[in-house]
Amino acid sequence: MLPLLLPRAVVSGLRGACRSSPSWLCTRACSTNDSFQPQGPNLCNSGEGSSTSGWRVLGSLLGLGAALAYHNHRCRAAQKESPHIYTKEEVRSHSRPETGVWVTFGGEVFDVTEFVELHPGGPSKLMLAAGGPLEPFWALYAAHNQPHVRELLAQYKIGELDPKDNTPSTLDTSDPYANDPVRHPALKVNSQRPFNAEPPPELLAENYITPNSIFFTRNHLPVPNVDPDTYRLHVVGAPGSDSLSLSLDDLRKFPKHEVTVTLQCAGNRRSEMSQVKEVKGLEWRTGAISTARWAGARLCDVLLQAGHQRGDTETHVCFEGLDSDPTGTAYGASIPLARALDPDADVLLAYEMNGQPLPRDHGFPVRVVVPGVVGARQVKWLGRVSVEPQESPSHWQRRDYKGFSPSVDWDTVDFDSAPSIQELPVQSAITEPLDGETIQSGEVTVKGYAWSGGGRAVIRVDVSLDGGLTWQAAELHGEEQCPRKAWAWRLWQLQAPVPAGQKELNIVCKAVDDSYNVQPDTVAPIWNLRGVLSNAWHRVRVQVAP
Amino acid sequence: MLPLLLPRAVVSGLRGACRSSPSWLCTRACSTNDSFQPQGPNLCNSGEGSSTSGWRVLGSLLGLGAALAYHNHRCRAAQKESPHIYTKEEVRSHSRPETGVWVTFGGEVFDVTEFVELHPGGPSKLMLAAGGPLEPFWALYAAHNQPHVRELLAQYKIGELDPKDNTPSTLDTSDPYANDPVRHPALKVNSQRPFNAEPPPELLAENYITPNSIFFTRNHLPVPNVDPDTYRLHVVGAPGSDSLSLSLDDLRKFPKHEVTVTLQCAGNRRSEMSQVKEVKGLEWRTGAISTARWAGARLCDVLLQAGHQRGDTETHVCFEGLDSDPTGTAYGASIPLARALDPDADVLLAYEMNGQPLPRDHGFPVRVVVPGVVGARQVKWLGRVSVEPQESPSHWQRRDYKGFSPSVDWDTVDFDSAPSIQELPVQSAITEPLDGETIQSGEVTVKGYAWSGGGRAVIRVDVSLDGGLTWQAAELHGEEQCPRKAWAWRLWQLQAPVPAGQKELNIVCKAVDDSYNVQPDTVAPIWNLRGVLSNAWHRVRVQVAP
Repeated sequence: MLPLLLPRAVVSGLRGACRSSPSWLCTRACSTNDSFQPQGPNLCNSGEGSSTSGWRVLGSLLGLGAALAYHNHRCRAAQKESPHIYTKEEVRSHSRPETGVWVTFGGEVFDVTEFVELHPGGPSKLMLAAGGPLEPFWALYAAHNQPHVRELLAQYKIGELDPKDNTPSTLDTSDPYANDPVRHPALKVNSQRPFNAEPPPELLAENYITPNSIFFTRNHLPVPNVDPDTYRLHVVGAPGSDSLSLSLDDLRKFPKHEVTVTLQCAGNRRSEMSQVKEVKGLEWRTGAISTARWAGARLCDVLLQAGHQRGDTETHVCFEGLDSDPTGTAYGASIPLARALDPDADVLLAYEMNGQPLPRDHGFPVRVVVPGVVGARQVKWLGRVSVEPQESPSHWQRRDYKGFSPSVDWDTVDFDSAPSIQELPVQSAITEPLDGETIQSGEVTVKGYAWSGGGRAVIRVDVSLDGGLTWQAAELHGEEQCPRKAWAWRLWQLQAPVPAGQKELNIVCKAVDDSYNVQPDTVAPIWNLRGVLSNAWHRVRVQVAP
Repeated sequence: MLPLLLPRAVVSGLRGACRSSPSWLCTRACSTNDSFQPQGPNLCNSGEGSSTSGWRVLGSLLGLGAALAYHNHRCRAAQKESPHIYTKEEVRSHSRPETGVWVTFGGEVFDVTEFVELHPGGPSKLMLAAGGPLEPFWALYAAHNQPHVRELLAQYKIGELDPKDNTPSTLDTSDPYANDPVRHPALKVNSQRPFNAEPPPELLAENYITPNSIFFTRNHLPVPNVDPDTYRLHVVGAPGSDSLSLSLDDLRKFPKHEVTVTLQCAGNRRSEMSQVKEVKGLEWRTGAISTARWAGARLCDVLLQAGHQRGDTETHVCFEGLDSDPTGTAYGASIPLARALDPDADVLLAYEMNGQPLPRDHGFPVRVVVPGVVGARQVKWLGRVSVEPQESPSHWQRRDYKGFSPSVDWDTVDFDSAPSIQELPVQSAITEPLDGETIQSGEVTVKGYAWSGGGRAVIRVDVSLDGGLTWQAAELHGEEQCPRKAWAWRLWQLQAPVPAGQKELNIVCKAVDDSYNVQPDTVAPIWNLRGVLSNAWHRVRVQVAP
């Protein structure tokens, strides 16, 4: 995301806005600059050769009359001596260009409708904050925390937030989710209880390391409130060995191991599968995937201390979370012992995420991180580890998170007939442009992510602008990956000329991993009743502006 | 393959054939049995209620006139007192129903035209031997080596092979391939020099373990003639350690390790890719894949003895063959050191194939076997092993056996931009029915193989009879595979009703491995200039007999 980097001269030139009408009402023509540049909403107040582009873009967006109405409204509000008081609800109702776009910051309310199209990071990024507070976004993008940005914002003040709206709401103790943490407003919520949400595509591939606050969240149950001082991780000992009861400090005494790992939910991109035929599951779009730098003890070190070794026959390491349903049943999952004991598999009992203690939504104080494996096995709020001859008996291990033939339905499904998902297949998606967007002719920038399971590196992403007839290889970005341990995604980008005369582009991406596995062309033949493993070519249709 | 299991009564009833004309010339009608049964070409000689089906089938196949001509010809030949002498060339020219189908056995010549349709293992299997010797096929299917089968064959004798044809041809010492071994006639030859050949689909999936004689052969150069007594494998020692010079006996002193491994050429199914657009390479069909039980020393044991250990940085184990081109350049390839040293990766220096010393075409006396990895790295006639900071400098490592985007052509290809193929993607193909075949209505049996690279097990094969609209899961057969070490293929089978009124079936198969990777729907988007990694859905069109 481009930070707001406005030269002070431009900002100071903006002072005194509202002293006159916008440029198209000026008797004097001021058509010096038609190009779109990152600058404030210059209102042609002084006639000093300043640009009209802000109003022009806004005018074309909203229609001239509407734009004028907003302008006047803003001016009236700012001129008042005692500030106008707005409720949160009123602010929230101004979240679209048609209603006007309001935001809050530090108890003040701003009408930034006119600024949306001028936002240097792009209109879509600013719109993520529409109708709510700017703080969570400025916390993500620290470049905003500069005096000239504050000054720019001040121009748009229309009033203040009702102080009553700042008191926290009373805790509803009858609601098992009442104690869930506060989440970042940019997250697109697929389910509030349990909380399941993904970052929007505009933000997802902006950062190689996903900020904790917008890392996708997949909860199956209410978030437990764990006291780190009394927390103990119970590790069942091997026959003849003692079990371990590890405090956070005990866990920190094991060698600290750090690794960058992409986590993906098995249901990522399920919404495309449900367009083929109804599936059972949350409507994840392309955002049920994120990347963090995790740190913690290696599971193999902890298991060795509890006396566990490689067995001759396949055995499983079972995990239980501290989250549980009203009957007391905890979330559970397992992975093969061979993977757990392989030092090269980098399986962690993680207590840090991007240099911070784990956020509550991501398993505070300890979660399992199993690189290259489906998110469902990376148990959060970890309470218990044991080595068993069978997979975890958990519903989520045995009766969910498995793939089936498209011919299998809820009448015929036999969950025992398919293996639990562990490593995931090769995956990629387009995050820019958005489906349905209108792009400028000339050149198009296509961006996205690509990843594969099992430590297999993405070696190529092919992008097509014509629905898959012709392809161009994208540039790959991101951390260099160790051979056989490519745990993290690649971000990718392609800049390509828009074919002349094209009114619409059917943009497609497909990735190849270092086992030369590829994504399937279409969704229907991989459709399955739970809508998991949706990794067909990702397709985005955009219009080309004439 | 069904063995020839004919009751003696039937066989003895066949004696005296040719004493009369075939049944349709009989004045007495003998229409007792119209069903197709495995029995000899009963010629209605005695009128003892015997079947006419042999002649009927043959009649419908060839037309009555032609069948009669063959019959008379056969009778004339058999009745001669001094046997007719045929050259190999004459026999070879009788390899189709239109010309008559001759075979040889032990210096005798047989016209089995009439028996083709009666062959219990199916006509297509017998036709593999048409125009040549039966011995190689009977060696494959030992059930033929029974007296009643010999007696049955004797009925078809038409003469003897010219003794001159049994003397070996003079060795042409100017031909570097003159010393290549004799091959099994069932192999479909894609290139004679160097020798490259695949088993036909009818035989490929008949055996879980491919017999050595029909295992696909991929040679890049003439086959070296290695003296096992003087053979030495040179293993370059690590810094500070001695190099090893290992005789075959030395190698046998390492612990013997056995493993069932499927080998596949990167070019398997290239012929489908070249139908999209021209590619450079041999026209392999579905048979550049086979499975054997390999035995030998583990590469990790040998490398440890030569002082090699895991390095911090990626290094490579380079192999050189004893096969070389006229400039003396040997075939070479490499694999990552991490794989070579991983005991679980089961990398072998193999000296046995299915319990026998390696055949010359498969690397006698020693070859590398790298489970889960492309055939090209499994160097045959192994002469030298070394650990290097870089991949093998060999042409075949650096300038071949890599995958590219469909947009890359010979003008734009940059071989350094793609990793060498190591693990292969998930693969499957249909071996029965054959493309273009006519099947009976009622029920269809579809058979084939499925495999994936990197030890990933095939967990499901979906088969469609309608081009991919609807799918049915096939039954999987074959050895149980260890988790993460599924080195060998699965054979599969589906028996399904032919949809009523269907005149044609568009049969498709696709496999899923335990990372839930799937095959891509179509070939064009994975097309590449070398025609490697051809793993789209396999499609076979068949007609349904009315």
